[in-house]
Amino acid sequence: MIPRYSRSEMAQIWEPETRFRIWLRIEIYAAEAMAELGLIPKEAAEVAKKRGGFDIDRIDAIEREVKHDVIAFLTSVAEHVGPEARFLHAGLTSSDVLDTCFNVQLVQAADILIADLDALLEALRPRAYEHKDTITVGRSHGIHAEPTTFGLKLAVAYAEFARAKQRMVTAREEVATCAISGAVGTFAHVDPRVEAYVAKKLGLKPEPISTQVVPRDRHAAYFATLAVVASSVERLATEIRHLQRTEVLEAEEFFSAGQKGSSAMPHKRNPVLSENLTGLARIVRAYAMPAFEDVALWHERDISHSSVERMIGPDATVTLDFALHRLTGIIKNLVVYPERMRANMDRLGGLIHSQRVLLALTNAGVSREDAYRLVQRNAMKVWQEGKDFQEELLADPDVTRALSADVIRDQFDLGYHTKHVDDLFARVFG
Amino acid sequence: MIPRYSRSEMAQIWEPETRFRIWLRIEIYAAEAMAELGLIPKEAAEVAKKRGGFDIDRIDAIEREVKHDVIAFLTSVAEHVGPEARFLHAGLTSSDVLDTCFNVQLVQAADILIADLDALLEALRPRAYEHKDTITVGRSHGIHAEPTTFGLKLAVAYAEFARAKQRMVTAREEVATCAISGAVGTFAHVDPRVEAYVAKKLGLKPEPISTQVVPRDRHAAYFATLAVVASSVERLATEIRHLQRTEVLEAEEFFSAGQKGSSAMPHKRNPVLSENLTGLARIVRAYAMPAFEDVALWHERDISHSSVERMIGPDATVTLDFALHRLTGIIKNLVVYPERMRANMDRLGGLIHSQRVLLALTNAGVSREDAYRLVQRNAMKVWQEGKDFQEELLADPDVTRALSADVIRDQFDLGYHTKHVDDLFARVFG
Amino acid sequence: MIPRYSRSEMAQIWEPETRFRIWLRIEIYAAEAMAELGLIPKEAAEVAKKRGGFDIDRIDAIEREVKHDVIAFLTSVAEHVGPEARFLHAGLTSSDVLDTCFNVQLVQAADILIADLDALLEALRPRAYEHKDTITVGRSHGIHAEPTTFGLKLAVAYAEFARAKQRMVTAREEVATCAISGAVGTFAHVDPRVEAYVAKKLGLKPEPISTQVVPRDRHAAYFATLAVVASSVERLATEIRHLQRTEVLEAEEFFSAGQKGSSAMPHKRNPVLSENLTGLARIVRAYAMPAFEDVALWHERDISHSSVERMIGPDATVTLDFALHRLTGIIKNLVVYPERMRANMDRLGGLIHSQRVLLALTNAGVSREDAYRLVQRNAMKVWQEGKDFQEELLADPDVTRALSADVIRDQFDLGYHTKHVDDLFARVFG
Amino acid sequence: MIPRYSRSEMAQIWEPETRFRIWLRIEIYAAEAMAELGLIPKEAAEVAKKRGGFDIDRIDAIEREVKHDVIAFLTSVAEHVGPEARFLHAGLTSSDVLDTCFNVQLVQAADILIADLDALLEALRPRAYEHKDTITVGRSHGIHAEPTTFGLKLAVAYAEFARAKQRMVTAREEVATCAISGAVGTFAHVDPRVEAYVAKKLGLKPEPISTQVVPRDRHAAYFATLAVVASSVERLATEIRHLQRTEVLEAEEFFSAGQKGSSAMPHKRNPVLSENLTGLARIVRAYAMPAFEDVALWHERDISHSSVERMIGPDATVTLDFALHRLTGIIKNLVVYPERMRANMDRLGGLIHSQRVLLALTNAGVSREDAYRLVQRNAMKVWQEGKDFQEELLADPDVTRALSADVIRDQFDLGYHTKHVDDLFARVFG
Repeated sequence: MIPRYSRSEMAQIWEPETRFRIWLRIEIYAAEAMAELGLIPKEAAEVAKKRGGFDIDRIDAIEREVKHDVIAFLTSVAEHVGPEARFLHAGLTSSDVLDTCFNVQLVQAADILIADLDALLEALRPRAYEHKDTITVGRSHGIHAEPTTFGLKLAVAYAEFARAKQRMVTAREEVATCAISGAVGTFAHVDPRVEAYVAKKLGLKPEPISTQVVPRDRHAAYFATLAVVASSVERLATEIRHLQRTEVLEAEEFFSAGQKGSSAMPHKRNPVLSENLTGLARIVRAYAMPAFEDVALWHERDISHSSVERMIGPDATVTLDFALHRLTGIIKNLVVYPERMRANMDRLGGLIHSQRVLLALTNAGVSREDAYRLVQRNAMKVWQEGKDFQEELLADPDVTRALSADVIRDQFDLGYHTKHVDDLFARVFG
Repeated sequence: MIPRYSRSEMAQIWEPETRFRIWLRIEIYAAEAMAELGLIPKEAAEVAKKRGGFDIDRIDAIEREVKHDVIAFLTSVAEHVGPEARFLHAGLTSSDVLDTCFNVQLVQAADILIADLDALLEALRPRAYEHKDTITVGRSHGIHAEPTTFGLKLAVAYAEFARAKQRMVTAREEVATCAISGAVGTFAHVDPRVEAYVAKKLGLKPEPISTQVVPRDRHAAYFATLAVVASSVERLATEIRHLQRTEVLEAEEFFSAGQKGSSAMPHKRNPVLSENLTGLARIVRAYAMPAFEDVALWHERDISHSSVERMIGPDATVTLDFALHRLTGIIKNLVVYPERMRANMDRLGGLIHSQRVLLALTNAGVSREDAYRLVQRNAMKVWQEGKDFQEELLADPDVTRALSADVIRDQFDLGYHTKHVDDLFARVFG
Repeated sequence: MIPRYSRSEMAQIWEPETRFRIWLRIEIYAAEAMAELGLIPKEAAEVAKKRGGFDIDRIDAIEREVKHDVIAFLTSVAEHVGPEARFLHAGLTSSDVLDTCFNVQLVQAADILIADLDALLEALRPRAYEHKDTITVGRSHGIHAEPTTFGLKLAVAYAEFARAKQRMVTAREEVATCAISGAVGTFAHVDPRVEAYVAKKLGLKPEPISTQVVPRDRHAAYFATLAVVASSVERLATEIRHLQRTEVLEAEEFFSAGQKGSSAMPHKRNPVLSENLTGLARIVRAYAMPAFEDVALWHERDISHSSVERMIGPDATVTLDFALHRLTGIIKNLVVYPERMRANMDRLGGLIHSQRVLLALTNAGVSREDAYRLVQRNAMKVWQEGKDFQEELLADPDVTRALSADVIRDQFDLGYHTKHVDDLFARVFG
Repeated sequence: MIPRYSRSEMAQIWEPETRFRIWLRIEIYAAEAMAELGLIPKEAAEVAKKRGGFDIDRIDAIEREVKHDVIAFLTSVAEHVGPEARFLHAGLTSSDVLDTCFNVQLVQAADILIADLDALLEALRPRAYEHKDTITVGRSHGIHAEPTTFGLKLAVAYAEFARAKQRMVTAREEVATCAISGAVGTFAHVDPRVEAYVAKKLGLKPEPISTQVVPRDRHAAYFATLAVVASSVERLATEIRHLQRTEVLEAEEFFSAGQKGSSAMPHKRNPVLSENLTGLARIVRAYAMPAFEDVALWHERDISHSSVERMIGPDATVTLDFALHRLTGIIKNLVVYPERMRANMDRLGGLIHSQRVLLALTNAGVSREDAYRLVQRNAMKVWQEGKDFQEELLADPDVTRALSADVIRDQFDLGYHTKHVDDLFARVFG
């Protein structure tokens, strides 16, 4: 997480201010529940709610001394609340506050990422419809294969990010738990109803059983999901990088009027945003590994996961948020060149239709071997001498003996390839 | 995947024989659908169904020549089916067969892994109930914290593997798709109803939109899930390794009568199975990374994912299956030493109850500072001189002035820590 | 490691037969050293050397019973050697044999990988010289930048694999150690001179200090090196995949006469070997992670690394060996299209020289702003209307006022860009 | 990289201020070289050197407009230098400045890490000597094996970090290169002697051949090395975490007098620093993966590596520096409990000597089977009834018939296990 690749809404989740505010909410909710249960005086909860506050510089100063962040926080809160503060945190352990807070932050981050994905989907949909019928060549292995449409390419991306969204919803649920269970998670010092109350207030579910800490398999699943989503970002970014290559140039990242690419070289518009996304995807992916390793804490808990999460919590969510937002902008403003798509497709003189011609010949009763021979000898002239495939076929008496000119031309009909585009759009966009 | 860490049921999924049998099913189902739609003669499908077969050695021989596995397979099938074979595979691409087959294999693997998790859960449950009230010390940072029960430890594991099962169910759904959409996925050469038919026959959903290949974000999510489950295996394995340490020895992997540990040293029973699981978890985790990298194929497809999947498909599923099965065996046969748990807990002379005494003192009106001082001076005698904490407190007039002997003894009541065990079991086991 | 991606020389290193033969050598060398030191009878070593042998099926049968591979092996050896076998393995632990053997295997694997790199370098060198002066466009961000030569591209690869070789030499040294130090590595039961003798016989250095096991940071460094080398393989493979794209087609993997690509579509030659290498690189890279995690064994040793190494030892070395060999074949047989390189470069009508023209104008006294304006207005005509840049410049009186026709033509001289090619070749090839 | 885990010396390397200062040095050195070669006026270089400067806020403002950091920087420099600034950067590309600067930063970071390792080695050495003869039990699989000394444990760590240092020296060399070769690396626009001059001034070697960017296999090797070193940090940290467990307690992290652990529970000293290091190691390891993926840039260059390096450059070096420093502090201040080590070792009543007794019996002519039986029946009484092994042996007439009391006692001699400690220290410390 560096400012260059951060957006403020997501970054704010990870500000100390935000964290302490969540801690305070947890402590106050817990106090309210205890007051209701008659475990602490009603006024204690009320005073805490009314006067509850903290001072970050003060917390920092105290922490330098006591080397314990939650104690430092509570001390600062006590300075605001007064003597009633002694009823706060009763029976809780630091983990109750820390882990529940971390989950609140991850849920908030997931909400932003889900909104990011919605925005990306909303950017993809109209571009897909805009180019529903824009013919372009489909490529396997980087080699021309058969025609498709640019809209279908974008529909594929839409379907992928719709899955990404569903995965993020599941990941959000994974971490939407609240644990207020006291030392080693036995509820010896804190009533389970306190947990239920706090959970409800925070929009979380109570963690069914914990060991003082929320089990880290939940977080491993969360960060693994970010890695999968980042990989989908890389896929679309890679597609754009390919399309923008000088030799292909079927689409380009938008280049603002004033933007300095290379003033002398008008072709020098680099897909730097998509390249940047490729790098960001690598980073977000990497964070899954330490999250996996965090699962096997020793016995009821150790603190080895903490340093990892202090880093990857912000880093992974802020970076993915930035990447999704950037990708949305790229898609919205993508400059598409349908003529170039057509020109590229035609570059092979119609050879992409050779399989259809082959099939037409065999359907017309030509033996498979003869059909191959006929197609190939005409294809070779196209490939080696730059001729037009259809013209060659029409001029080959062995071919025209089997197929009428009309039938030959039919094999070059692009409509054959696009006849199911509407069906596919219906499957993707409903 | 090496024989040492393989179980046959899972390994068989990845045998060439199995793969070709699935391919054949796909081709025959596709032919049935085409026959029904009147696209190929009815007899063609019937003959294919009746005489369909293949010869692995023959396939290998042909592949060496043509360097294309699906063509080699189809040639061998044709040798069994006869001339009607020419109606097979009509309009399909190799990817239709390969990707749908891979998904069938991953679904079958998921079914085994889900069954493995069920077996593990069924092993954990009775052991958890057996030790529901077996007192043991809860440890944070490897240091004694407060009492809990061994049953709660196992209930925590149960809850974690119940989540693991749910994740596997989701991962199974991710890959339970069928794509029969022809070159570049446009359905130009194959009717979408063929896909629907084959999907239904195989128990899969049609892939809403593909690019000839099933999108690899699905597989990334699948292998990431295996990584999370493997990390949970590592967690429980690590717990057992800790419990079996010479100094702790609260539980041990079962050691068969005839097994040679060290005939001379009866203590030399090593937690080798759990250590083995730790290593296997590292391996299964690692396979998630190339699965992430496989997502960003070029344009409509490239074949870079293929070599990865030929390796991690079997390796990840076979290894995790083996690990889960081994873990189930460890749990079933785990030798538990409740007396040793109790002895370990008592090793600190009652100091694990010091916080409760502190609280009792402040509740009795002693100032926080004085209470600390009182607790600490008695705790220090226990810590440094090996005295018993309760006895020291009972003999300290400053303490007994505030607390009666009965109240002091109450603070050492283990029932205080276990009073919510039933609640927690209800939350976990329902 | 699967047969499809294995070469026999490397695979044989990891055969049980090979392993047991290395074990036997270690045991016999150790016996020789002990005999020389008078620790065991001379005849014992001689008999062991003469009659030493083993039977793999027998070892497997015994291991199934005693669940200890080294004991099973020694029992089988004893059945060949007779009563003198009791002097074998005296004072050694299993780790002495296992770890020293593993290092021998890794050293042998490194030797093959180094030879692979030598072969690759020998394949690159003549191709680089062959195309030393083959002009091609250099691309940044996938966009045409300035001219370079195809030989320089290959020289870059040569320099990279020369570094890869050096890294492999270092990695080989990392693991070329021998530990014969007995239980917990104290030499309590075995004389250090035995270690020195065995090490010398095996061409290894004694491990300065071990804890029974050879420290795993050595192996982490080894597998990390394989990951770096694999990443270099991916780089060159990616270059070839790009060059072979339909729109670029500056080079192609060799396609044998009989090979079936698509008989109908002569353009459908897919860079499947390079794509395959991309996938293999992902896999080899992934194996570094568990090797890193293997370092932190518990106390003097645990066995968690063992399952990892049983898998990644063969998998990583066999796969990288296969990849390097395949890459060497690709380079040797790469079909290069210099005319196409030239045609691609010319596709922009000379715009890649615009910066030189700009500089010439400013050198001729035109202000930077004016020079920009002049270049840009001519560049735009090229870019938008497909004109020739040089012709436009020669026809622009504002340009010709500042630069003579000869000077303008000079800016398009490709020799300007290639004048240091010989220097660079000297730097790379010496 | 977060302030909590950062030390200022390392963090400063990555400050914008530092980066721009290095850029300026590169530009001025390049100008000096060009002036010397007569390519630009001598005064230009002199003026640049004298007046060269920049303004960070100004750079930021310009970059927001032109979206190009090097152009923004050069503009700000021009505002300080005046018209002579037009001679700066002549023939260079941004990559020349950016990549050479990044390498300077990585070399500086390596120097700090090497110094960190020196400090750690200097902390380990005296502690190793201090405990050269402190007897402790060696453990395999977490189970007591045979005696060793605590000094040997530390000597093992010393040897490992000496290797780590050597690896860092190699990694430093990997990236200690300078590339000033102009667009696509052909030296078309810049004389190779400029590169030689700048390289010399910066203490770097010229990059033999580049493609505008320094090849990223160098950086992959660098970050992989950090991952290996971090794994060694984890190993020692894990050892300390084990030693500090309540049941083991053979050593403890230093706990300052004023530090608040748990005021009530004197045993509650948690190995939080070592746990923290375990987490930091996971993070540093993870950064190797994106560094591997950065190698395969497209053609001559793309910018996908940049975002990765902006993050992992600081993150990996700062975090590892912090971890090494923290580990050094832990070692220096580690509280060691030799009595507890002895008590733990004795916990098994002498059973750790059973193998020696077994050997003594067979050496005295007892058959292997009988010897086993004798040892085992006495061992069992120790294991199950808590007897003392030596006493039992001395009281067993079947044993004393074969071995005299003195010989029996000899087998319990710890000196047997420590006789090579001096040799091992000589091997490690020279």
